[in-house]
Parts: sequence; structure tokens; C-alpha cells
Amino acid sequence: MNSLSTALPSVLFHGARAVERCVSLGRAPFSDMDNGLYRAWLTPAHKAALGTLEGWMGQAGMEVRMDAMGNLIGRYAGTRPDLPPVMIASHIDSVRDAGFYDGPLGVMLGVECVAALYEAGCRLPFPIEVVAFGDEEGSRFPAAMLTSRAMAGTLDEAALDMADARGVTLAEAMANFGLNIARWREAKVARAPLAYLEAHIEQGPVLEAEKLALGTVTGIAAQLRYQITVLGKAGHAGTCAMGLRQDALTAASEMVLAVEEIARADASDLVATVGRMAVLPGAANVIPGETVFTLDVRSGDETRRDRAAEAILARIRELAQTRGLGVGIEKIHNLPASPCAPDLMDLMDGGIAATGQKPFRLVSGAGHDAMVMEAICPTAMLFIRCRGGVSHNPAEHVEVPDVEAAFTAMMRFIESLGAKHV
Amino acid sequence: MNSLSTALPSVLFHGARAVERCVSLGRAPFSDMDNGLYRAWLTPAHKAALGTLEGWMGQAGMEVRMDAMGNLIGRYAGTRPDLPPVMIASHIDSVRDAGFYDGPLGVMLGVECVAALYEAGCRLPFPIEVVAFGDEEGSRFPAAMLTSRAMAGTLDEAALDMADARGVTLAEAMANFGLNIARWREAKVARAPLAYLEAHIEQGPVLEAEKLALGTVTGIAAQLRYQITVLGKAGHAGTCAMGLRQDALTAASEMVLAVEEIARADASDLVATVGRMAVLPGAANVIPGETVFTLDVRSGDETRRDRAAEAILARIRELAQTRGLGVGIEKIHNLPASPCAPDLMDLMDGGIAATGQKPFRLVSGAGHDAMVMEAICPTAMLFIRCRGGVSHNPAEHVEVPDVEAAFTAMMRFIESLGAKHV
Repeated sequence: MNSLSTALPSVLFHGARAVERCVSLGRAPFSDMDNGLYRAWLTPAHKAALGTLEGWMGQAGMEVRMDAMGNLIGRYAGTRPDLPPVMIASHIDSVRDAGFYDGPLGVMLGVECVAALYEAGCRLPFPIEVVAFGDEEGSRFPAAMLTSRAMAGTLDEAALDMADARGVTLAEAMANFGLNIARWREAKVARAPLAYLEAHIEQGPVLEAEKLALGTVTGIAAQLRYQITVLGKAGHAGTCAMGLRQDALTAASEMVLAVEEIARADASDLVATVGRMAVLPGAANVIPGETVFTLDVRSGDETRRDRAAEAILARIRELAQTRGLGVGIEKIHNLPASPCAPDLMDLMDGGIAATGQKPFRLVSGAGHDAMVMEAICPTAMLFIRCRGGVSHNPAEHVEVPDVEAAFTAMMRFIESLGAKHV
Repeated sequence: MNSLSTALPSVLFHGARAVERCVSLGRAPFSDMDNGLYRAWLTPAHKAALGTLEGWMGQAGMEVRMDAMGNLIGRYAGTRPDLPPVMIASHIDSVRDAGFYDGPLGVMLGVECVAALYEAGCRLPFPIEVVAFGDEEGSRFPAAMLTSRAMAGTLDEAALDMADARGVTLAEAMANFGLNIARWREAKVARAPLAYLEAHIEQGPVLEAEKLALGTVTGIAAQLRYQITVLGKAGHAGTCAMGLRQDALTAASEMVLAVEEIARADASDLVATVGRMAVLPGAANVIPGETVFTLDVRSGDETRRDRAAEAILARIRELAQTRGLGVGIEKIHNLPASPCAPDLMDLMDGGIAATGQKPFRLVSGAGHDAMVMEAICPTAMLFIRCRGGVSHNPAEHVEVPDVEAAFTAMMRFIESLGAKHV
């Protein structure tokens, strides 16, 4: 059997169009902020983007529907009615002041794969469903990956009891969008996909450092997140002698450095980060009486992650005790590692090899909808090099040839999968 | 000559009344916040407090006027028309969620001193002016000690070009209060006071640690304040390996600890504090790209203060360089030390001795209106023990016997000063 991807006459066109479409969605009416991109779930920008995407899916030969959570699903039928679909998906929502590619690129590449099949008059044994998830970033409501969780049937109903920063409840937001929160359970897939494929920018510097366009993702790292509160005693910065202080910031500073030290000493894929810190009361002339900060620990290996987190927390308690300060530790979330399916990783390696690049594997430190879908089907992810590892930022950038290569790898991946189901 | 303070029959009454009046001003209409005290300059609460204070000053035999900046001045004439007044002053404004005593206690003690003279039918050679400054804390507009600076003639006109957090300009706030900003220069004293006396809670733990009610202030510490900006590179907390990070918070943490270490090593009255810190962008899953913090360095000795600040800044630059991060250092203010007048310190020691306590001297790490008035006249300050050294907090507390002692010391101070000008 000939490779479809090499047989297609317009192969260099698809990656460029995917990039162009991501960029075209980066401004009004597809963004709800001036001079930048912000497209949150169930907003006018989201609605506008889905309208345009529906047209693109239709042009690529797909039947399009919206599910009960606002996910847009384009279906391209296969030749074997008994097979469940292969899902090619990513998210269409963005963070505030986002780049163009985090999410939409995976959706557009899915559309291009189907467009290429459609143009070639080719159908695979299984149907393909291209999905644009409505909420992965959690940039509007205080929870993330809500729509893929609904689709996988793993969303806890309690999570729907939310309001956004303006006090708009999820039920109201859904009603404004034309959805009914009472029907949210209908978003669950009737049948688990045969496989799930998600292409995404790396959001890290590894591929760039390796001078590689593409990487096969081995899985999504296990995440632990804590909120740490250090309690000292506020005092006047001018009148309280150094020896009499109970400074919650100097204590927290030792803790931040302990986090860094322990993570560095691990010398694996382990990362640990203090990303948010509030220093209270927060006046130049007041000794900090309270410091609250987050601790985020990740590794592809849960045991390694847990061991590092335990070491960090033990050190934090010890540092607080040494200074005679109080410390509170609250676990915010614990996400297990989400491994990609080994046979699909092999197929993805083959797809990458078809582009002329040597296969390369890496873990994803960031969460993706794939980790949700892994609960119901085998998953694969393809990472695409992004400049400087930058994401969640207008400076987010991918090179068109890298995206062309991603398209080629994905085509080879699905045709290889098709070959297994003839 | 007999001591007035010992001759007065009601001497134990004055301190208690000063305390009671401070407490009575701690609630509506003298506060602009519910369930706490917030009385900022030129607010309805400030206006209400001045109305009540005007009555108390009148009852104590003073002629009362308000100056062009909203300072309330009660004048009790002396016997020698050639002498300028002795000013007994402090501030009537407060921080948000304040205690009762920081500021008002000094004003009320001034009123009690005059009340005691008036009740005894006694006039000193010089007039006494009791002043309630309108703005010492700077809790409304972004500058402090505005009204004493206007009175001393050291206020830069540019400082008046301000708006509060709600966008109300100083000119509007003054107009609402019944003042005209165009006349602000009229607040300058026509003639420099003979002496300036300010009683204030210590706002520190020194007197309590010494088990003493009162202390003679030797001067106000020299203050240096900086804003430090550390520039790293924001990145995804899950995808950027530890070795590839440019974390602005871990760098800032090393700097905070360097500040503490250098100040502790000095082992003098030197104090150095990082009181405010902003970590940007401030998300749990983003490596901090920027950290901005304040550095406050104080000592009674300017040379010691400057030496420590230089050592700290050199260390901060070195730490940034070691990590390959950028650092910006901006000097926010530089207040020289403000020494109290040696002969007035001796008189204050005598006043303290008259209460039966051994004289004790200490530096003021906090700024007070006295440091402003020092530009035009000799100053004296009396510190009163406060529980736990706590101020700027509803838990601020003084014991009535300590305030009675302060009243006695102040009476002895002014009568001793009077004896020098007969």
C-alpha cells in the first residue's frame, strides 16, 4: 500500500493552512480582548470561532455537530461501521493574552488530515472525529479540562456549581451560548474511541534544544500541587529589631530555595515550582506576617514525584520550626501520570521517521485533554517545537515547516492505524 | 518653684481621659470603615474627629483654628508676647484597620497638658500650641507627612499633584473638606516654634523588653528605601527543566535572605526589611518571570545605614549576575536621620525621672512628624510602651498608668522649659 501522505499532491499546503487558520483566529471577533487573544469557554469569541471552524470542517467533508458542553465535533465516516472513531482533538479556548497555537493548532491539524483524505477520496476503516474542546485552560471558570472530562464521563457534577470572575454562573453561561446545563451528561461519548490523537506545541524548550521539529510524547507527568501558608508576626519595619522578628517572607524565601535545591538534586524529569506568592500585609514598612505560596511538583514517574514532594514538605516544616513560625500545607490537587499507549507511541515514531527526522520521545510536563481521554481509550500525542519553549504568551511561535512535518507524521500515524484495521 | 505636675489635684485623671478619648474616636462617625478604625486625611471621619477635638481644645482654654491643610491648632497664650509657641503635636489620621493610639494619643496628651494648666489658672511664659496634623500616615494619598511638611515649609508643590485610589484629586478632597488647595502655602508657620514636643506609642518592643513605661527618643532613624526588580523569564512550570530556568522568584529569595543576613550581622540598631513583594505573572503553573520587592534600611546612624545598604545592593547585583538575570534598583526615598535636641532630651529625662522611672533613651525606627518639624525647630519625643510592640493594628494597646506617667513627664518637661524662659 502506498503512503497516502506521500501520495498527496498538496502536502506542503496543509501545515501552512493550519498555521494561517490559527493566526486568523487570533483577533476579533475570535478574541474577547483588544490587542491580544483571549478566547475563553462559552464566550462570544468562542462562539465565533466555532462558527468559522464549522465551515472549515464542512469543507473538509465532515458532518459537524456541537455536543452538550459546547465541544464541536466533525465526523468523517469510515468504511467499517463496526469500528469506533479515531479522535483527533485539542482545545479551541485560550488563556488571557495568549499565543495563537496552544490548542487550535491541534484542531487545525486534525481538520487538515481529514481534508487531505477527503481531497484524495480516501476513507479509512474507522471514522475520524475531529474535536475542538471548549475548555482546557480553565481560564474562565475555576476548573480546567471541563469539556473533555464531560466527554470521557469523568466530570464530577459538583464541578459545575461554579461562577466566573464576574459572577456569571456556568448554567447562565451555557444558556447564553445556547446550551442547557441540565443536559451536560449527554456530552459523554456513546462509545469509547479506538484511539485518541492530539498534536500540540511543546510549551517547553526540549525539542528546540535537541534541534528537532517533532517528538513522540510518552505521557503526561503526574502533578501535585500544594498551597503553603507561613505564619509569622507582622511588625513595624523600623522599630522591631532583627533578633525579635518573626518574618514570614524570610522563612518563605528559605522554603523557595529548598524547593529549587531538592528538584535540582533529583536530576531527572522532575520539576518543582513556586509560581504564586502573596506577601501580607504587603507594605514597604511592615515586616511580613504571612506568606502564602503555591508548590507545583511534576514528574513522569509518580513515585519520584511523591518522594520529592515529601522531601520538600518535610524541609518546609523543618524550616518553619527552626524559625518558630507556623506553617499550613494544603494539597490542592493530585493528578496521576497519564501514560500514552506504547503501540501508538511506536506508530508515532514511525510517523516522525516518515518526515525524515529521527524519532524522539519526551514527557509532557503540562496537562492536556489527552490525560483526560486516557481514562477511556489509548492515547497518542505529538509535540511540535515552539520557539524558546514559550507558550501562554503572544510571543508563542511555530515554524511552518515544523507544522508541515507534523501533518505528515499525523497522516502516516492514521494510515498506519488504518492498516491495522482493514 | 513648685512642680505644677505634683501640685495638680487631678493628675491621675488626665492620662485616663487621654486614653478614653482616643478610644472614643475609634468608631463611627470618627472612622470610615465598619468594625474597625480607618481615619484618613480629608475624609468625613477626619472632619468629625476635628469637630470633637475642637470642643475638647475649647474646654481646655484654647483658641482653636484650622490651617490651610486641615491641621487643627489649639493655642493657649503665654505671659511673654515675644516668645514663639511651644508646639505639642501628633497626628489624628490613621492607617486602615488601625489601633486607637498611634497619633491621637500624642494629641490628647497635648490637650491634657493645657487642660491641666488651664484648670490650675497657670500660664507659662510661651504660648502652647496643640496641633493635630491631618496626614502623617499617608494612608489616602501616595505620600506621607504632608501636613507637617506644609507647616514646616518643606513640602514640594509637586507632591500636591496627587489622586487617591478612587481617583479623587487632592484639590477635590480639600474642596470637599472646605479647604482650597491654592492656599496651601498659608499653612506654613509664621514663626518657628520655640520647641516641638511629640508623645507617641513606641511601635516597637524595646520599652516592653526593658520593663519601662517611658523613653526619651534620641532621634528618628535615617531611612533608605528601594524598589528592586528582578527580571528572569516566565515559563511553563511543567515543561521547563530545572537547569533551563531563569526563575525570578528563586533569585529574589536569595536576595531576601541576603538582606536579613547582612542586617543581622551588623548587630546594632540597624534594621533591613523586605515588606512588599509581587511575583509575576503569579500563576501556580508558571515559573515567575519577574519579581518586584521593596527594601527598607534604617539606622540612627546614617553612615552605618548607608554602608549596610551598599553591601546589600552589591550582594543583590552579584546574586542576579550569578543566575544570569537582570536586576533594576530604584531608590524610592532617602530620609536623613533626624536627631532630637540634646538639651530637650535632658529635660525629657528629667520629666521621666519625675515619674519615678529611671530615664531611658532609644532611637525611633519609625518616622514621625517630629522629623519634619526638626527642619525648623528643636524637637523632643517621648515614647510610651505599647503591648507587644504592636501598632497599625486593632490590637494596639497602652496601659493607663503608662499614659498617666507620660502626662506627668510632659508636664514636668514644659514647666522645666518654662523655667528657662521666665
